[in-house]
Amino acid sequence: MNPQLETLPYDFLYHIGYSKEDAKKIFGDVKFVVMGGSSKRMVSFAEKIAKAINHPQTELQHLDMTRTDRFCFYKIGPVISVNHGMGVPSITILLHEILKLLHYAEAVDPVIIRIGTSAGLGLPAGTVVITDRAVNDYVEEQHKIIILGKRVQRPAVMSKPLADEILKAQTNTTFITTLGTTMCTDDFYEGRTNAACCDCTTEEKLAYLKEIHQKGVSNIEMEATALASLCNKAGFKCAIVCVTLINRLEGDQVDIPPDVYASYQERPQNLVCDYICGKLAGNY
Amino acid sequence: MNPQLETLPYDFLYHIGYSKEDAKKIFGDVKFVVMGGSSKRMVSFAEKIAKAINHPQTELQHLDMTRTDRFCFYKIGPVISVNHGMGVPSITILLHEILKLLHYAEAVDPVIIRIGTSAGLGLPAGTVVITDRAVNDYVEEQHKIIILGKRVQRPAVMSKPLADEILKAQTNTTFITTLGTTMCTDDFYEGRTNAACCDCTTEEKLAYLKEIHQKGVSNIEMEATALASLCNKAGFKCAIVCVTLINRLEGDQVDIPPDVYASYQERPQNLVCDYICGKLAGNY
Repeated sequence: MNPQLETLPYDFLYHIGYSKEDAKKIFGDVKFVVMGGSSKRMVSFAEKIAKAINHPQTELQHLDMTRTDRFCFYKIGPVISVNHGMGVPSITILLHEILKLLHYAEAVDPVIIRIGTSAGLGLPAGTVVITDRAVNDYVEEQHKIIILGKRVQRPAVMSKPLADEILKAQTNTTFITTLGTTMCTDDFYEGRTNAACCDCTTEEKLAYLKEIHQKGVSNIEMEATALASLCNKAGFKCAIVCVTLINRLEGDQVDIPPDVYASYQERPQNLVCDYICGKLAGNY
Repeated sequence: MNPQLETLPYDFLYHIGYSKEDAKKIFGDVKFVVMGGSSKRMVSFAEKIAKAINHPQTELQHLDMTRTDRFCFYKIGPVISVNHGMGVPSITILLHEILKLLHYAEAVDPVIIRIGTSAGLGLPAGTVVITDRAVNDYVEEQHKIIILGKRVQRPAVMSKPLADEILKAQTNTTFITTLGTTMCTDDFYEGRTNAACCDCTTEEKLAYLKEIHQKGVSNIEMEATALASLCNKAGFKCAIVCVTLINRLEGDQVDIPPDVYASYQERPQNLVCDYICGKLAGNY
């Protein structure tokens, strides 16, 4: 962590609405921070985990600790459920504040788990991928950022033991759950032929997707290397569990019927719910 | 626009929840798309503009056309009010879908206006900056992205006449409103000394901020070059109107009292509201 934090007379975590003073009072018991892009998904996860861990309160209004309109924020005993929006800049804003919150709270070995949706490569839609390698657009386990006008590269390190533990928690065999390499990109549409503006042909797109697939990429999303690099640098373990919505080797259009989409979104939630219950029960 | 769009048998704009078929039926009359990071701000803007243009419906429930939990979405006659989340990846997801929606709707010369918050340089907090140049971390009027593993650079072009028209609409002289150069970065915390992890000293930070200030940068936010480059490429005019929340030459902490913060957030909303009313009245 940043040693300069100790010298701050106060610290207001502006995007989540909590301060350094709140941290220890409220968040000292946190063991799991579960995050996902969509606020609806994280509200649903809050309800699910409350029931799963037999939390005395299962009604949302008692779990809702949202203080801003940037991120929804729920606390269910040792679990925080929070949304991170879409893309690297959005998740890093949340992560800096969540990691500071956990640090100020002196929470003991909390883990950060992202549950998300993603595009798959060569996998049937609905597959659950637990990330064991997070790579950038060049298939490197690195996260590149620009700090004060200078390019900085940080290793994107996932926790292999944590990924293995989550895989062990899977009991549903009606779909594939697998460890895999997850690519993080900064753009959803560029490189898709249904973008508003498009600089590539279907052939160029497929050649690139096949190439990265051959290099081992299982799925593509928009946060992995940021999460992996920042948690690694700050000394936190993290995991990413994503369901695939399409097989990009077959097309670009996400056009799943709403009920199927809802059932796919449940898969990472259910798995992480089972993992947390098992972990709290001392199974791993 | 992407000529491949014409060959698509259907196109579902997955993150806003509208399809190609909806477009012409519902959005043909759109003249202004106003967007901002926070959903609360865009709900507030929807109410404000409904009253300002004497829209027959001013109650939110009649204006709310939100279909997903990714972005809030309001339509008030010729105005769409929508939030874009935080950062380049999030706003580009929205923009690709909004630009396709306007294209399919055959909307006539609609303009895209972002109303946001930003950090200022050498300006008192509460200043309103209308962007006339959008620059990246290297103070270049360019937006850099990676498409299919290859680096692509696109010019970030703002519409000077549109910025001038918006400036003319300003009547409130109790705070500064100015044209300015806006820098777009991908990170809120890196480069701030109150980040969870920090690779820079206060001296390095101030040296960089003074350097970019001398190169003409008035304010810093997280979407400008993406908006400018994508709108320019697709043939749409765009504007950015941001209020500054702090003067970064004096500190990193955003700690404005809630009522002051609320009044600052109103400033770009009020200005864009007045601009739209003036434009609809034929004043510009």
